[in-house]
Amino acid sequence: MIIFGLDPAIRTTGYGIVRALGSGRYEILDCGVIENKKTMPHSECLRRLYGGVNELIDLYSPDCAAMEEPFVGRNSKTAIILGMARGGILAALAVRGVPAYSYMPSVAKRAAVGSGGATKEQVAYLLAAELKINVNDIPLDSTDALSLAICHAQRAFCNLPDKMGKSI
Amino acid sequence: MIIFGLDPAIRTTGYGIVRALGSGRYEILDCGVIENKKTMPHSECLRRLYGGVNELIDLYSPDCAAMEEPFVGRNSKTAIILGMARGGILAALAVRGVPAYSYMPSVAKRAAVGSGGATKEQVAYLLAAELKINVNDIPLDSTDALSLAICHAQRAFCNLPDKMGKSI
Repeated sequence: MIIFGLDPAIRTTGYGIVRALGSGRYEILDCGVIENKKTMPHSECLRRLYGGVNELIDLYSPDCAAMEEPFVGRNSKTAIILGMARGGILAALAVRGVPAYSYMPSVAKRAAVGSGGATKEQVAYLLAAELKINVNDIPLDSTDALSLAICHAQRAFCNLPDKMGKSI
Repeated sequence: MIIFGLDPAIRTTGYGIVRALGSGRYEILDCGVIENKKTMPHSECLRRLYGGVNELIDLYSPDCAAMEEPFVGRNSKTAIILGMARGGILAALAVRGVPAYSYMPSVAKRAAVGSGGATKEQVAYLLAAELKINVNDIPLDSTDALSLAICHAQRAFCNLPDKMGKSI
């Protein structure tokens, strides 16, 4: 099973593609960011997010996606812009028939590295150590997306349906 | 010039397609709503919004789109969901290369029917009278979208670049 983790934002969307190998083991197939310059209008950002997600689906044929449960404590203007990024990405997944699940970021980090409050640096360091890969191969803005994918991999593959994220 | 007016929401998105004929005149080519049931998950709503916008672009080949400037006074949870609808729709327009502009709803209604505070019923009645069409041919949830398209038609066609909406 291949899981597409996504941490959406209009300027920097992190992604991580993880293959669940069973018995709680997994491997990272890809991770990175879709970066949009500050000067780009929202429509161009969304075109690039939609296109980027589509390309990654072409490359890895994920079985499902895991996204962050949006944090609602922000102000309304920020929330609308965050919602736009999430909407463009969720539309891309839905058009391609990739089912999406959401998790609280702290739940995802706890599942991936054992601590819900870990910083991006700590997540990158711990994942690199566990998987015996170079920490520089994990961009910091992709650690939340990787945590989400790993969290969903554990729950979906290890038959923990009551702990599965919210289907969105 | 053909303008695609859109009033995005996750459950009921209004649309109106208007052809500008010059000298402030215009005709309505189509108007209606993309309706999503309350029981549908957000991903399915976005798939339908994205697909619906795509179909309307296929049918009418609009030159540009006009959308509502989002109202930021709502609470963050509502704002995220509104943003998602807006993001899915703006992604569909951007992928097809249809440039989008935004206007305050009151500005759009004032341009279309002379009053920024007109109700949906009043907008439908006044547009039907002006265009000599049956008021029942204008679904109430499409009046904001029609006002946006008419507003943009006037400004773009009548060479009022300083009054044009914000390019988004």
